[in-house]
Amino acid sequence: MSQTAYQAVVATFTRIYRYEHLGSLAGWDQAAMMPSKGNDARGAAMAELGVLIHNTLTDPALAELIKGAEAEDLSAAEQASLREIKRQWEHANLLPASLVEAKTLVGSHCSHEWRTQRQNNDWQGFLANFREVVRLSREEAQLLAKETGLSPYESLLNKYEPGMSCAELDRIFGDVKSWLPGLIRQAMEKQATEQVIAATGPFAVEKQRALGLDVMALLGFDFEGGRLDVSNHPFCGGVPEDVRITTRYREDDFMQSMMGIVHETGHARYEQSLPRETVALPVGRARSMGIHESQSLSFEMQLGRNPAFLALISPLVKKHLGDQPAFEAANLAKMYTRVHPDFIRVDADELTYPAHVILRYEIERALIDGEIEADDVPALWDEKMQAYLGVDTKGNFKNGCLQDIHWTDGAFGYFPSYTLGAMYAAQYFATIRKQQPDLDERIAAGDLAPIFNWLNANIWSQASQWETGELVRRATGEPLNPAHFRKHLEQRYLA
Amino acid sequence: MSQTAYQAVVATFTRIYRYEHLGSLAGWDQAAMMPSKGNDARGAAMAELGVLIHNTLTDPALAELIKGAEAEDLSAAEQASLREIKRQWEHANLLPASLVEAKTLVGSHCSHEWRTQRQNNDWQGFLANFREVVRLSREEAQLLAKETGLSPYESLLNKYEPGMSCAELDRIFGDVKSWLPGLIRQAMEKQATEQVIAATGPFAVEKQRALGLDVMALLGFDFEGGRLDVSNHPFCGGVPEDVRITTRYREDDFMQSMMGIVHETGHARYEQSLPRETVALPVGRARSMGIHESQSLSFEMQLGRNPAFLALISPLVKKHLGDQPAFEAANLAKMYTRVHPDFIRVDADELTYPAHVILRYEIERALIDGEIEADDVPALWDEKMQAYLGVDTKGNFKNGCLQDIHWTDGAFGYFPSYTLGAMYAAQYFATIRKQQPDLDERIAAGDLAPIFNWLNANIWSQASQWETGELVRRATGEPLNPAHFRKHLEQRYLA
Ligand SMILES: [Zn+2]
Ligand SMILES: [Zn+2]
Repeated sequence: MSQTAYQAVVATFTRIYRYEHLGSLAGWDQAAMMPSKGNDARGAAMAELGVLIHNTLTDPALAELIKGAEAEDLSAAEQASLREIKRQWEHANLLPASLVEAKTLVGSHCSHEWRTQRQNNDWQGFLANFREVVRLSREEAQLLAKETGLSPYESLLNKYEPGMSCAELDRIFGDVKSWLPGLIRQAMEKQATEQVIAATGPFAVEKQRALGLDVMALLGFDFEGGRLDVSNHPFCGGVPEDVRITTRYREDDFMQSMMGIVHETGHARYEQSLPRETVALPVGRARSMGIHESQSLSFEMQLGRNPAFLALISPLVKKHLGDQPAFEAANLAKMYTRVHPDFIRVDADELTYPAHVILRYEIERALIDGEIEADDVPALWDEKMQAYLGVDTKGNFKNGCLQDIHWTDGAFGYFPSYTLGAMYAAQYFATIRKQQPDLDERIAAGDLAPIFNWLNANIWSQASQWETGELVRRATGEPLNPAHFRKHLEQRYLA
Repeated sequence: MSQTAYQAVVATFTRIYRYEHLGSLAGWDQAAMMPSKGNDARGAAMAELGVLIHNTLTDPALAELIKGAEAEDLSAAEQASLREIKRQWEHANLLPASLVEAKTLVGSHCSHEWRTQRQNNDWQGFLANFREVVRLSREEAQLLAKETGLSPYESLLNKYEPGMSCAELDRIFGDVKSWLPGLIRQAMEKQATEQVIAATGPFAVEKQRALGLDVMALLGFDFEGGRLDVSNHPFCGGVPEDVRITTRYREDDFMQSMMGIVHETGHARYEQSLPRETVALPVGRARSMGIHESQSLSFEMQLGRNPAFLALISPLVKKHLGDQPAFEAANLAKMYTRVHPDFIRVDADELTYPAHVILRYEIERALIDGEIEADDVPALWDEKMQAYLGVDTKGNFKNGCLQDIHWTDGAFGYFPSYTLGAMYAAQYFATIRKQQPDLDERIAAGDLAPIFNWLNANIWSQASQWETGELVRRATGEPLNPAHFRKHLEQRYLA
């Protein structure tokens, strides 16, 4: 039996999946295990693997095979698979190797120097490198735009959130901007008279870890197919068959590590639950960054900060960290919903977080589309921080526009995923609640199955079978609708 | 400037080194970190990498380049480098892919079934698979012999110990056989009246680990370029830039984990000290299995079981495991030199270990050279165990000829490395003692520099620059001489 072109394409992408397995492991190990002197050799090995994968994807024979497969009589499932294969293939083939290489070099240089420049609040030093990053990112965006018919910024956005347009983002974020500042103000007024009992540390790392493992078990993490470790920047890595999540511990604060673990467990269950038959192919992988974040935020925001869930885990917290008034369910709920506009996105609460994202979206879009220059970023940053959150960042680059790593190596277009994820999650839970009106009672009783079953049926098992819009419509009966997000926030923060 | 053929060969082998980095990490992770459900995907990824490396090594263009490099005007260092490159290249190119594949399949099947067959003492079940392993290994040996001019068994031996001949092994092992049984008997007579105080457990894993880390630090392990973890079968893995050693802990016995760590640290320091300029090339890597084992056994046997060293670490043992009479220096020395002929090689003491190895050498050599058949192994095993160690293994396959994994996947020719390593180590230390007559006082005083400096100058820094015989001659002034091993054992066990 001779192989069809489609089968040959599948064989190639299966091979790439196995290469990626090694790269993913190497990345996890680098962050969680590797001693410092291993870094150069690791970097060289990972770069060599990158070249290998790029060469495999840009092999002219593969282009022929894909063309051949498109002409074959494929089932609907195979057509969806080929659609996702083409997306990955085009991503590797649309850009000239020289541009990819230049952007990687300039980006990793800028990123490396940024670490100290941020510490030194050195905007001018950063700017010298950053201008080059912007220049090359614009070049990339324009080349992609020419091929895809999207706007330059949209072309970058589509690397992370395929199918998303600026018109759609403007509609959604515009809606959020119309009510978020008022909601933040009202919530702060309401919380002004609230008594919150602070937890008294220190909290030994081993005890926090044991608590984290118990919470992961409660959330259905499969420990035969994954691990929990420590890294500087928490992430979910590994491969679907072996998912590695990380956290970081501070002895004076248990809140971040615990909720960070809830967040990463959301990512992990998505990966662990992807259908195994197609796991080696793009159609069998996670849908997008926004959908991935919708899983971690379903766990962290919809479930994790829900008072019913905090009541459920309050005994676990007491068991591992000792009994103290701060760990009473009602107080945990207050601790985890405290609203406080501040400088840093990654430390932001649920309510102010979208403002940080929208600000970045507006700036990076203008930057890529050429409406502003790199030099204009700090003034615009300050203006928007004042407007959205009432925070003054003048001259404070370190905790202002220098705080994130994303732009330093040209990952423009990523930020919207965070808030899209939060909004998808709110929409899922509105749907789940319709089917399960007593959801909070279920959660408090420790029955999380309604949530896991719904996510599994509607998101996890669907992988990349559908375009994002179709996935959300099939799951919730409507396109992304910011009303659910607003209603969720109003109920949690004003009710 | 155009590249010379030699430079192009170096570039290819550097690429292979980077691929191997990923394979080595994947293997370490599989043994030390990976949860069970990750195994299939890991196996597939590692096999894919194996195919990639094999394809790279058997690319006809590489054969042309190597031929071209041989015709170029190379420095002595480059000639040595090319010699080692050719060795690795030939190893990949001498055998038809069909044979390699068949042997891998049959070997991994036999190896897999062996795990339960050994438990069940099922020699007949094992034999059915093992006959095939022997048949394919003979085929491999004969093909290699035709190309190399060596005997069939020698061809396999040379995969692990390049340059070693059966005539040389017969000379060396024949010498050992002439005095070892008498020496074992005398040592046992001497120890019969000795009082040894047993240590009282349990010993918490965390405390054993802390002791192990202290011992590694004392032995000069570079923790910025390596780690200590846990695996079922202790090993030294990773890459020279990032060496990963493992051990396993038993709460009722600290001796094995502690001395196992000393052993693996010997392997580790060799790897960590290989010259960095040539680390990506075969000439810059460890010389052979026998030389590698000579480093671990320099640490474990020459240094580790030396009463002066045990006196040095006795305070560390007490510090971590608590003060008890068993941990006095003189008693530790007795514990670690107790002679007791028994079934299992990996549990054997220093004195009886060579008998286990020589027995295996004689059987595997006869098997590969066609003098005996797979069916004959148990009877021969029992006969030799009776003769060399006075141990009766009749009907006890589990603790007899089924105890080792090596033969199950056709790794014939490996066993001699263990005892060659022990003998090289004894010869090194005879040389060091000549230069440093007060070595034991130095060791007891915590000054291990004379040992590390000598090993670094004579072995570690030399990597694979010289053929093994030349390496040993340059280091010690003479070829491998079993008299040093005998003298070492007589002084330790009879003096
Ligand atoms: Zn996330
Ligand atoms: Zn060893």
